[in-house]
Amino acid sequence: MTKGSINVSVENIFPLIKKFLYSDHEIFLRELISNATDATLKLKHLTNIGEAKVEYGNPKIEVKINKENNTLHIIDQGIGMTAEEVEKYINQVAFSGAEEFLNKYQDSAKESGIIGHFGLGFYSAFMVADKVEIITKSYKDEPAAKWTCDGSPEFTLEAHDKTERGTEIILHISEDSREFLEEFRIRELLNKYNKFMPIPIKFGTKTETLPLPEDAAEDAKPETIEVDNIINNPTPAWTKNPTELTKEDYLNFYRELYPTQFEEPLFWIHLNVDYPFNLTGILFFPRLGNNINIDKDKIQLYQNQVYVTDEVKGIVPDFLMLLRGVIDSPDIPLNVSRSYLQADGAVKKISQYITRKVADKMNSLLKEDREEFEKKWNDIKVVLEYGVVSEEKFAEKADKFMLFPNVDETYFTWEEFNEKFKEIQTDKDGNFVVLYATDKNQQDSYIQSAKEKGYEVLLLDSPIAPHFIQKLEYSKEKVTFARVDADHINNLIKKDEPIVARLSDEQKETLKKEISETIDSKTYTVQLEDLSLTDAPFMITQPEFMRRMKEMQQTGGGGMFGMGNFPEMYNLVVNANSDLANEILNKPEEEKKVLINQALDLAKLSQNLLTGKELTDFIKRSFESLK
Amino acid sequence: MTKGSINVSVENIFPLIKKFLYSDHEIFLRELISNATDATLKLKHLTNIGEAKVEYGNPKIEVKINKENNTLHIIDQGIGMTAEEVEKYINQVAFSGAEEFLNKYQDSAKESGIIGHFGLGFYSAFMVADKVEIITKSYKDEPAAKWTCDGSPEFTLEAHDKTERGTEIILHISEDSREFLEEFRIRELLNKYNKFMPIPIKFGTKTETLPLPEDAAEDAKPETIEVDNIINNPTPAWTKNPTELTKEDYLNFYRELYPTQFEEPLFWIHLNVDYPFNLTGILFFPRLGNNINIDKDKIQLYQNQVYVTDEVKGIVPDFLMLLRGVIDSPDIPLNVSRSYLQADGAVKKISQYITRKVADKMNSLLKEDREEFEKKWNDIKVVLEYGVVSEEKFAEKADKFMLFPNVDETYFTWEEFNEKFKEIQTDKDGNFVVLYATDKNQQDSYIQSAKEKGYEVLLLDSPIAPHFIQKLEYSKEKVTFARVDADHINNLIKKDEPIVARLSDEQKETLKKEISETIDSKTYTVQLEDLSLTDAPFMITQPEFMRRMKEMQQTGGGGMFGMGNFPEMYNLVVNANSDLANEILNKPEEEKKVLINQALDLAKLSQNLLTGKELTDFIKRSFESLK
Repeated sequence: MTKGSINVSVENIFPLIKKFLYSDHEIFLRELISNATDATLKLKHLTNIGEAKVEYGNPKIEVKINKENNTLHIIDQGIGMTAEEVEKYINQVAFSGAEEFLNKYQDSAKESGIIGHFGLGFYSAFMVADKVEIITKSYKDEPAAKWTCDGSPEFTLEAHDKTERGTEIILHISEDSREFLEEFRIRELLNKYNKFMPIPIKFGTKTETLPLPEDAAEDAKPETIEVDNIINNPTPAWTKNPTELTKEDYLNFYRELYPTQFEEPLFWIHLNVDYPFNLTGILFFPRLGNNINIDKDKIQLYQNQVYVTDEVKGIVPDFLMLLRGVIDSPDIPLNVSRSYLQADGAVKKISQYITRKVADKMNSLLKEDREEFEKKWNDIKVVLEYGVVSEEKFAEKADKFMLFPNVDETYFTWEEFNEKFKEIQTDKDGNFVVLYATDKNQQDSYIQSAKEKGYEVLLLDSPIAPHFIQKLEYSKEKVTFARVDADHINNLIKKDEPIVARLSDEQKETLKKEISETIDSKTYTVQLEDLSLTDAPFMITQPEFMRRMKEMQQTGGGGMFGMGNFPEMYNLVVNANSDLANEILNKPEEEKKVLINQALDLAKLSQNLLTGKELTDFIKRSFESLK
Repeated sequence: MTKGSINVSVENIFPLIKKFLYSDHEIFLRELISNATDATLKLKHLTNIGEAKVEYGNPKIEVKINKENNTLHIIDQGIGMTAEEVEKYINQVAFSGAEEFLNKYQDSAKESGIIGHFGLGFYSAFMVADKVEIITKSYKDEPAAKWTCDGSPEFTLEAHDKTERGTEIILHISEDSREFLEEFRIRELLNKYNKFMPIPIKFGTKTETLPLPEDAAEDAKPETIEVDNIINNPTPAWTKNPTELTKEDYLNFYRELYPTQFEEPLFWIHLNVDYPFNLTGILFFPRLGNNINIDKDKIQLYQNQVYVTDEVKGIVPDFLMLLRGVIDSPDIPLNVSRSYLQADGAVKKISQYITRKVADKMNSLLKEDREEFEKKWNDIKVVLEYGVVSEEKFAEKADKFMLFPNVDETYFTWEEFNEKFKEIQTDKDGNFVVLYATDKNQQDSYIQSAKEKGYEVLLLDSPIAPHFIQKLEYSKEKVTFARVDADHINNLIKKDEPIVARLSDEQKETLKKEISETIDSKTYTVQLEDLSLTDAPFMITQPEFMRRMKEMQQTGGGGMFGMGNFPEMYNLVVNANSDLANEILNKPEEEKKVLINQALDLAKLSQNLLTGKELTDFIKRSFESLK
């Protein structure tokens, strides 16, 4: 039996690192700036705890393009390295200095914000550069060192005369990566990945106009000076304490995050938790309107202020994917699959925490400024209804803050609605029937009938509404929802009331037969009812169950199989007590037919069913009769 | 100056490989089966060219779970390894045997279908196993070897008494990966990644009932036997020559690929190209209907029959993302970002090739069976219109096969339509005005007016239509599109015809003033026209430009900024030559108002603008007048 050790040969692994370390080559800049940030934060920590006896000052990181030499420079004023440290940290692939540092200063360094994880980041430089140089001077009193490597595993290390503390990385950009020598490209990357990193990043200079002194002459020209162009905001709003922030601060941060969004967000939620996981962030509720474009301006995920991705599916519950903002957490595993993410304990807790915070925020908004909350309801209801349908935990809490507007824009909580209308809207079998409309214009005549009875009609018009209603019916006992046009109002809420019939049973039989024979009886089923004299003579209804199943299938999920292709079927409710019914019975054959058809046309009109040639003819006839 | 070599230490890199080699741990099985497939295909190649003097036979790969020992076994009957080869291929991380093999047998092995690239695949075993054993016997006359490694870089290598040719990999599944000892989980993975791999894969056994012999006694019971349960189809349709395949073969393959799709695809395109890139595959056009769920059953990407992903954005042009099927190409770089993908030369060519093939297919479908093509038009038009809008190359070719249905379901190509209607529908300024409807029911009265003039009205009702129309207007000279209700038909296609006016200019002035004062003149602008006696007295139109901008904004992209929130505005076209106009002029004040309002209601009806209380009142009034 032989024993041995697996050999990872550098010649074999190096090309792989170059090619596959990151799926996206542009990541190299993020990695190198993260290293520079770490180097600076380490120095800060060491000066803080008194281990480094140097002045920390106001260090920054500079990014510089030299087009002539085809080089890109990343220069920091951080901790620096001695030749010995270069040997240790750079020449040993996958030896993360950051990890060692954090282990060594475990207790004191926890809050330092140091980013590094794997120690591979530096090598991503070779994805875009033929040759990389490091010129570095440690904060310790030792000479500077220069390391050079041309992408083969061979390197050289020599002394250098650099005197300022810190590290300069020089990338000799390779032929096929020349894009990274373009100013706009680097600006784009800095803006994408480093906009909120904690150390100021300089990229070029800009001119600034100095204010005129108060005693300046009238024709004095303001002076301009060159200043560093700092591309980042090292202390973005989410890193601050909510108590320090004003409304204007949040709005400014929103604009910083989404410069092309002109509309203000409706409100925001500041996330901030240390235990059992670390998470900060701000979520904004945008005014969604009808242009729901979730491909743009999504929630961004950061780790220690470094941008990671805007693919947050799995981390943020589905129903909150329409929100905007930032989440910053070192506890979210990256580079893992969706299914793994969703199974990860920390991620699950994060998702639950966010859900809870959103629910709490809704609760407090409702309590603190109900009027404002009502005003915003139309813009947020889709998100909240989706939450109730898809997250049980959210649904439980939502019972307290979900609003139910009626068709006249009065808003009720469920409790309020219950209190006011449960008695009158409970039918003879003890079911509380909640009447709703989905379009107050189209369903106006039905709404009027319900109101005449003293009933309330809610307006539930979001695309999620059918699912939301279903969910409520399941979770509440003896509550059913019915759209106002699902039947005549007397049948929707059946009461034990005496019914007066004007026609005899035989007359009704004849009437029903005559109407059925005149109309398209495949689409319309004649249903005779003894209604009041003032009720419409003809009226078209569509049973709740079938309509809802079809709607649910259209919005995806739920619904009975194949329901979507089921033909539209309606009931034609004929008021047997109306004058018209009487007249139909007594007219000669031909007039009867005209009367029935005209009445059916009118009933169809109120359900938006009179279209095409039928409508054209109806209008033509009506114009004729105007003359 | 020191020189040296960068050191990739195994202790450091090994944990990284375990954790980050693949974002998805389940990939290990795909990798190991790919290795087993390569081992088998290598043997096949060597026997083919006479270098291996053994019987190739009918080798298979077996996957076996041993729950008692917590082990998973992958067993092949391929080329095997000698102890020396284990040293070389296994103990050197990232030394890909496949690559060496392909280099050595460059000319003869091109078509062998060998998969391996990086030589890291085997190590993915350590993502799920504490300990891995390899027991292998080469096809060469040398003793078998057993390699054992517990995940530390230490390994042992010893002789083994295995006599059958091939390799067995034994994974001692780790505590937190026990899911991979569940039959359903392994079955799921085999089904996802290996369903179409080229060597038969056995997973367990099943019972099969033997057919009774013809002379069997009447009460004979059929015999059952245990047979290997082969989970894959080693020769899926796309690997075959299109000339070998029948319609039924394609439909069977579709069902194999998407077992939950019940509807047959409309047609398919077999892709097959060797140069300048390698690509095979079959694309299916599904019947899209209204339930467009692109999250499910998407196009799948394979490499040498190994499933890679169903995220094909960037590889397949956007407008074809709604198709289904398979693309198999070794030339698509994996593990790279979207932006990199889209910039990759090979990928660009692949995307262009697919676009061209789709266009060619449409052309031949139109030519070969026009009737069938017309029948399918409604189900494919969205895809094709989107193609015209988004891909210039496709748009150029599409001119030949795009169909333009009229409202009576007669289909024209652009050329046919041009020939038939260009003359009559060209206005006095030389513009060919194409009239269209988006809803033949709702726009019926306008369609009838256009038809009475002998014009043709197209039906362009897809959600992409506004963009498609815009694109056509840009690319064709002197062609404009107008929806039939954009104005009175006389104004949509203006001809040099004499106009007869029944009213004097003063009368018209009075009429206009009276109508404007009666109606809501913010929404409706009165436009007096001298039309024929039979034209409707009142008619509502909406100018083409504004309506189209709003529609384009609603479907995302294009459209003027903020147009979406612009109020709805219409023209009220009043026929000054109508009897009604005359009557309005001559009625007393009160009757005048009633007449104008009733006429406006009727005009609104034909544009679906009479809703809510207005409609309820109109219907009530009309029911009253029936009596």
